[in-house]
Amino acid sequence: MIIPIVGGETVQYPNGKKIIRQTVASRLSQPIDFGNRGMTLEEDINETNEYYLAQQKAIIHKKPTPVQIVQVDYPKRSAAVIKEAYFKQASTTDYNGVYRGKYVDFEAKVTKNKTSFPLSNFHEHQIAHMEHVCSHGAICFVIMRFSAHNQTFFFEAEKLFPWWKRQYDGGRKSIPYEVICEEGFLIPMKYQAKVDYLHIIDQLHFRTEEEE
Amino acid sequence: MIIPIVGGETVQYPNGKKIIRQTVASRLSQPIDFGNRGMTLEEDINETNEYYLAQQKAIIHKKPTPVQIVQVDYPKRSAAVIKEAYFKQASTTDYNGVYRGKYVDFEAKVTKNKTSFPLSNFHEHQIAHMEHVCSHGAICFVIMRFSAHNQTFFFEAEKLFPWWKRQYDGGRKSIPYEVICEEGFLIPMKYQAKVDYLHIIDQLHFRTEEEE
Repeated sequence: MIIPIVGGETVQYPNGKKIIRQTVASRLSQPIDFGNRGMTLEEDINETNEYYLAQQKAIIHKKPTPVQIVQVDYPKRSAAVIKEAYFKQASTTDYNGVYRGKYVDFEAKVTKNKTSFPLSNFHEHQIAHMEHVCSHGAICFVIMRFSAHNQTFFFEAEKLFPWWKRQYDGGRKSIPYEVICEEGFLIPMKYQAKVDYLHIIDQLHFRTEEEE
Repeated sequence: MIIPIVGGETVQYPNGKKIIRQTVASRLSQPIDFGNRGMTLEEDINETNEYYLAQQKAIIHKKPTPVQIVQVDYPKRSAAVIKEAYFKQASTTDYNGVYRGKYVDFEAKVTKNKTSFPLSNFHEHQIAHMEHVCSHGAICFVIMRFSAHNQTFFFEAEKLFPWWKRQYDGGRKSIPYEVICEEGFLIPMKYQAKVDYLHIIDQLHFRTEEEE
């Protein structure tokens, strides 16, 4: 819920998309996915989470974009206006919550690449965070969308870590598409749960209870 | 981590504290606790969480303050500057994470009152969120500080809900201090874990494993 809105409800792009990508997206841990493609994955996941919430299946929320506030104006009789602030790098993943009593934590990323998923989509802080929560028994994973293939995968965090580490030992800086097809799980696109990742969690963590 | 900082790292208060309280704090779900007292609880909890993280005891983070971004400038060769944004009402609590595989979710509030804790510290959305996560097996609670008594309490969400509901049936709009003393748990203040709430969680949820 928003307190007051002045001047519109989305970000304005004075300089066009290319500048935005250079100046913002490349420096931030979470892609301020101003582009259509990225927004679509985020919107799909938000819708899915709303559906899960309405159905009382799971309580998962996207965290707000971290912002460092520098200056705030307090006009009389109207709401505070933030006049100067900067994007901060996120130290955690974007989504977390609870499913069947278990802590769930994930990051969602889109690539336009066709043959591999670039590791530059992640940041050291996020990988460290995922390692921490994994060691505490979290259900932790990455949702990867290949926009060119129109496919969205569930890739377990534990399978991401070795790729992340190997890139510093001369390993490749991306995960091949074939590996993601083989080791990941294609997430079904449903009408109400656009990115039905709980379906995969059920298979991986609650199979005996859920299936057959 | 902050990308660039221009002009300082904290919010400026052109109008003094009283105005700020009227125009911002009263309208927001999380108290933009610009006052010294409120910051202290948040700082104490953040420090505690950092200590827990360093000790690999639990992974708990404060969520960023939700902000609706309206206008962003992209100066050449420097970082994007948010030029217009507004505080949004949070739809969840401020803190969540994982402890011993369990999902942990809580809100932290300070009162200057001596005899009771005002329910106006919470918002309908937050209560609904706490009810949702409770029904999914979360460890959910409120950290309440009575600054006048220099006491900080752990109060289980399930004990908060009846008070919240009764206020709409003519019930009182605050929880008496005696009730919080009796039904809540005084959180020990330790050197490294300033607000050692895991100590209470251990007693409530993991007693047999942990104690004696």
